[in-house]
Amino acid sequence: VARRRTLEIRTLGELEAAAAALLPEAIRGYVNGGAAEEVTLRENHAAFGRWTLRPRVLEEVRTLDLATKMLGAEVRAPFFIAPTAYQRAVHPDGERGMARAASHVGILAVFSTLSSDSLEAIARAAPSGPRWFQVYLQPKFVDSQALAERAERAGYSALVVTVDTPVLGSRDQQLASGFAMENPVALGNGRNVVSPPRPPGGPGPRFPLEGGSEASWELLRRLRETTTLPLVVKGLLRAEDAQRAVEVGASAVIVSNHGGRQLDRSPASLDALPEIVEAVGDRVEVYVDGGVRRGSDVLVALALGARAVGLGRPPLWALAVDGEAGVGRFLGLLSSELATSLAILGRRSVQEVDRTDVRPAPLGRSTS
Amino acid sequence: VARRRTLEIRTLGELEAAAAALLPEAIRGYVNGGAAEEVTLRENHAAFGRWTLRPRVLEEVRTLDLATKMLGAEVRAPFFIAPTAYQRAVHPDGERGMARAASHVGILAVFSTLSSDSLEAIARAAPSGPRWFQVYLQPKFVDSQALAERAERAGYSALVVTVDTPVLGSRDQQLASGFAMENPVALGNGRNVVSPPRPPGGPGPRFPLEGGSEASWELLRRLRETTTLPLVVKGLLRAEDAQRAVEVGASAVIVSNHGGRQLDRSPASLDALPEIVEAVGDRVEVYVDGGVRRGSDVLVALALGARAVGLGRPPLWALAVDGEAGVGRFLGLLSSELATSLAILGRRSVQEVDRTDVRPAPLGRSTS
Amino acid sequence: VARRRTLEIRTLGELEAAAAALLPEAIRGYVNGGAAEEVTLRENHAAFGRWTLRPRVLEEVRTLDLATKMLGAEVRAPFFIAPTAYQRAVHPDGERGMARAASHVGILAVFSTLSSDSLEAIARAAPSGPRWFQVYLQPKFVDSQALAERAERAGYSALVVTVDTPVLGSRDQQLASGFAMENPVALGNGRNVVSPPRPPGGPGPRFPLEGGSEASWELLRRLRETTTLPLVVKGLLRAEDAQRAVEVGASAVIVSNHGGRQLDRSPASLDALPEIVEAVGDRVEVYVDGGVRRGSDVLVALALGARAVGLGRPPLWALAVDGEAGVGRFLGLLSSELATSLAILGRRSVQEVDRTDVRPAPLGRSTS
Amino acid sequence: VARRRTLEIRTLGELEAAAAALLPEAIRGYVNGGAAEEVTLRENHAAFGRWTLRPRVLEEVRTLDLATKMLGAEVRAPFFIAPTAYQRAVHPDGERGMARAASHVGILAVFSTLSSDSLEAIARAAPSGPRWFQVYLQPKFVDSQALAERAERAGYSALVVTVDTPVLGSRDQQLASGFAMENPVALGNGRNVVSPPRPPGGPGPRFPLEGGSEASWELLRRLRETTTLPLVVKGLLRAEDAQRAVEVGASAVIVSNHGGRQLDRSPASLDALPEIVEAVGDRVEVYVDGGVRRGSDVLVALALGARAVGLGRPPLWALAVDGEAGVGRFLGLLSSELATSLAILGRRSVQEVDRTDVRPAPLGRSTS
Repeated sequence: VARRRTLEIRTLGELEAAAAALLPEAIRGYVNGGAAEEVTLRENHAAFGRWTLRPRVLEEVRTLDLATKMLGAEVRAPFFIAPTAYQRAVHPDGERGMARAASHVGILAVFSTLSSDSLEAIARAAPSGPRWFQVYLQPKFVDSQALAERAERAGYSALVVTVDTPVLGSRDQQLASGFAMENPVALGNGRNVVSPPRPPGGPGPRFPLEGGSEASWELLRRLRETTTLPLVVKGLLRAEDAQRAVEVGASAVIVSNHGGRQLDRSPASLDALPEIVEAVGDRVEVYVDGGVRRGSDVLVALALGARAVGLGRPPLWALAVDGEAGVGRFLGLLSSELATSLAILGRRSVQEVDRTDVRPAPLGRSTS
Repeated sequence: VARRRTLEIRTLGELEAAAAALLPEAIRGYVNGGAAEEVTLRENHAAFGRWTLRPRVLEEVRTLDLATKMLGAEVRAPFFIAPTAYQRAVHPDGERGMARAASHVGILAVFSTLSSDSLEAIARAAPSGPRWFQVYLQPKFVDSQALAERAERAGYSALVVTVDTPVLGSRDQQLASGFAMENPVALGNGRNVVSPPRPPGGPGPRFPLEGGSEASWELLRRLRETTTLPLVVKGLLRAEDAQRAVEVGASAVIVSNHGGRQLDRSPASLDALPEIVEAVGDRVEVYVDGGVRRGSDVLVALALGARAVGLGRPPLWALAVDGEAGVGRFLGLLSSELATSLAILGRRSVQEVDRTDVRPAPLGRSTS
Repeated sequence: VARRRTLEIRTLGELEAAAAALLPEAIRGYVNGGAAEEVTLRENHAAFGRWTLRPRVLEEVRTLDLATKMLGAEVRAPFFIAPTAYQRAVHPDGERGMARAASHVGILAVFSTLSSDSLEAIARAAPSGPRWFQVYLQPKFVDSQALAERAERAGYSALVVTVDTPVLGSRDQQLASGFAMENPVALGNGRNVVSPPRPPGGPGPRFPLEGGSEASWELLRRLRETTTLPLVVKGLLRAEDAQRAVEVGASAVIVSNHGGRQLDRSPASLDALPEIVEAVGDRVEVYVDGGVRRGSDVLVALALGARAVGLGRPPLWALAVDGEAGVGRFLGLLSSELATSLAILGRRSVQEVDRTDVRPAPLGRSTS
Repeated sequence: VARRRTLEIRTLGELEAAAAALLPEAIRGYVNGGAAEEVTLRENHAAFGRWTLRPRVLEEVRTLDLATKMLGAEVRAPFFIAPTAYQRAVHPDGERGMARAASHVGILAVFSTLSSDSLEAIARAAPSGPRWFQVYLQPKFVDSQALAERAERAGYSALVVTVDTPVLGSRDQQLASGFAMENPVALGNGRNVVSPPRPPGGPGPRFPLEGGSEASWELLRRLRETTTLPLVVKGLLRAEDAQRAVEVGASAVIVSNHGGRQLDRSPASLDALPEIVEAVGDRVEVYVDGGVRRGSDVLVALALGARAVGLGRPPLWALAVDGEAGVGRFLGLLSSELATSLAILGRRSVQEVDRTDVRPAPLGRSTS
């Protein structure tokens, strides 16, 4: 199958199928798969259906303002590209293409420690950003520290610390697809920078994890003291953890279940958002990722208190379909749909969207 | 595929499939498509399943009275043909066939500003009506005014002002089908009469809408002062907006989400009906459209306080299947089914139907 | 396709498919079809899923007593064959085969006014019964009276008066199948004995029903005064109507929506059962039909207060598969499954089953 | 189809399909089938979806302790192999292979009275256990007594008394598959040791059960007085029965509906767990079986108060795929997934898991 031309992506809805038709099975399994039976993966999107948007009519919406600020920096829309690994496995344009497409239109992109391009190369590809860098708390703290320093030098403006992966989740679709975590593509930031460990097979009374997960609140505090970059803590699903993150010095939190890839039966991100907004929303910015696919999804999340929403798989699908140009097309479609939805909702600016714009959907609603 | 003969439409249930088999893909995409993932489109019909009808037995129902009044004029049944555009794209009989079929049996039909026949030609085709004319609040107020005057001169008895379209919704199915909004068929009322704008692609901090939506409560008030026709405000989903419409001088409101074509995740029309009946039902007539397919659906809406219900896609399907004769057959089937349902419900007249005729369906009901 | 041999019906679950494979499309459409979109038809069975049965263990269930009394007469199980029309259209054994199979094992069968064998021929085929006769309140009261007298003379021990059919429902599947209500097979009780009317097509301000439904509480009272047989009122879904039926002199009521064939979106029979048991259960026997397919369904209905349950389609499917022998096999399978279920529930007799044996199913249950 | 090599079972999710492809239809029907329409069978797993797991982040989970104690004996994980009959019908390795695989990794296995290997042969195959023996209360008490004595002599450390089978349930899938209960394989413990009776077909006012179920609380008390082994009562779904079992002297109870094979519409095991934990959880150990498929399911059950969970079909599927090696592979995958899930939940030991780790899932969740 030849790659589709960008112009042929007419709707956001077509994106997933278009990418699925193009990606090799193993890569598709890696990108799309979730943990175990993928209950959480499905619920991530289904959770948006638990809310209805309540349009106001005849509001004067001649101008539509999608811009917001994330940690003080203006972005052109309240969504960002969430960190995902190995982007060159999806398309040769890789992280650099992703960075250029996002930067070109003023959208924040977050890049992964497990990027296929080096963080410095990504920064050079799109010097004006905005861009953040994602880190795991590495088994050796000096590795975390080194990454933080490189990111700072390369002009990344925040560190996103992923805290929901003491080990990698059990990902059936990925495993069944034959995806080999170890070598999908070369790693841009060096092989000593490891991804979270997987527990060994076989039951035992107790076993040390391979490599040993050292992640802890104490390490987060050390990182906070080490770097001058603001910290964004990613992977929270409980109010208590969000409070603790704020106490440790986080500037923002991302409500996330790692795209449904870690613990099946954990809550949909959107379902966890309200309790975290309630707990820390007056002190730090709260973002959410997981299940966002359409403009109306963005509005629901904003109405529930998110400052912005992250998207993981959709930009990868767009990258798969047409590289940098595909990502640009995707960002354009999503912006346009968000603007359309905002206008019909009767709001001029995404910053006006609030809790009165949503209401719980009736319980008897269709779940399909 | 040859067009089916009218007599072969044996049931209302067969209509959608029969039309789907006949219509070219692009037209089918335009007619049937909703916004984005079509959640609201599906919920429009599914919402009727959230209620059960509670029959009374052994009521003496030798006569069955379907007639009601809409803005003072008698109609032979409490349903009407909702405004839809470009009817000649569906069948050469177009709006004139639709008008003749409805008028022949005393059913109200509402025609769109975006009709493929001119409003005057429609009026001539079925002089005795009843008929209303639908308008958007045009970018230039004089255009709205001109349309209102033409409608008044041509004998339309009310203006239906659609207020839920500051921009056109994101309609995946329509876009994917290749439907070209600009030129499906010639427009009967002149090309300077524009449909709502679509926002441009591409993110930006703020952008003016193409053409600029000028719709506002102030423009509605001006129209109210300009025309002698009663105004029916169409596209409301919130109690506050209904109250405001009544304050501005509306004679009736239509609870509607534009057939699920505007904002996905907005409420099903039927779900929004009770709060609007509660808010303004004692002052103006309340209608509802969206998801009505069967006689029992009509009864549910009446029981929840609607004076009458609008149908959009089903008459188009009927027109597609056999033009004017198809619409006649459809109206006959729906009337017959409504009469049947009314009799089994134990009511002699649609005007007797009230809140005691329905009860919320059990929460554990099947949603399919 | 050759008819399956009875011995090959191994489970109740196989019955529907086996019959579907054998019946001509038009007859299948008549037997299986419900009103309109068949929401009520589906909910009839789905409603049983809104309850769970709560087994008690280690009860001593060496003997299992399925017998109960219906209007004073012992029957060998708390289920009965509900009245259905035209049984010879399904299999040449017709009503006489049905009567023999049921009588052979001491199960009550109710025969329809619209039987293909005459009520006298049915009685001769299975003289010992137990059997009841179903009547509609005919347009001319003398016709109802004549049927009642014939039934009495022929040894039927009760009259089941169907009250939910002022007109016939809108039955899509039946209409689409090409079934011709007028002449599926010859009518056993004479053609002047009419089925309920259908309203004419086409909308109109008011129209008399063809033939005119004269059914009324007054006619029921007259029938009560005319016949010495006990009256069982069938087709109730509201407490008020059940109370009225008892006031008029009914000896029992059947909670029923006519197999989901009359008014779509009316309640599932089982959903209406509790309010009717509450209203009249201390004064008359309450039965229920609709959606009963398995032994566990019978237990749920008994636990909610039904004295016995009626089955309509399943005996027809059994008749279709192997005539009288098929019905016998079906009754044996259902009895056996009921006995099995009763034992596991921890009850020795169906008469011990009570409200403590059920609990509402969790709301989040699967609806499939 | 050739048997799959063990190494090809990459995920727990692949197991069911792999076994289904290998097993002859009759055996598959026996293993997989449930009672009647299999509502309870489906709900057993679906019930886990009514809960979400709530991860805590940055807990220090360098070691993961899966071990727990069951009746005082340490097991290496909080799950066990539930008793299932005729294991040689699934694979020639039979119960001896199952025993070796479980014993090898320190997992408890419970063997059935209806084993295809004799209980003594099973014990010899894996002398170190841990293993328990399952009995029915036999029609003749001496038979129960004899089995108990043999089990004690052979080194089984507890008797699991199944109390939910006064008769065998109505198992459609099994019956339709052509499975012959009488002779799937030779019985290891002698043919005079009978399985529960099935009630005869055909309705009757009362009938003695074939063979006569003598099971009773009195017989359980006698067994309690006869054997020195601790008794585990299996098959409870009500708090009252659990209390009674404890009063009679049970050391533990297993909340179970016999894999959905007995009474359709009985509660999902997990749904019944909380009331039984509430009633007796402070006095005896409470286990649960039914629907457990994944590591996250185990955690949900532990959080609701289960000490350990039983699995019935999955080990049989594993046995079918590759005999003893397949079971070993299955136990390794489940342990690994449980360890992974535990780590992400933020718990170091399964014994730390408590009610704060779960929350009811939102009602509007998807049920698929």
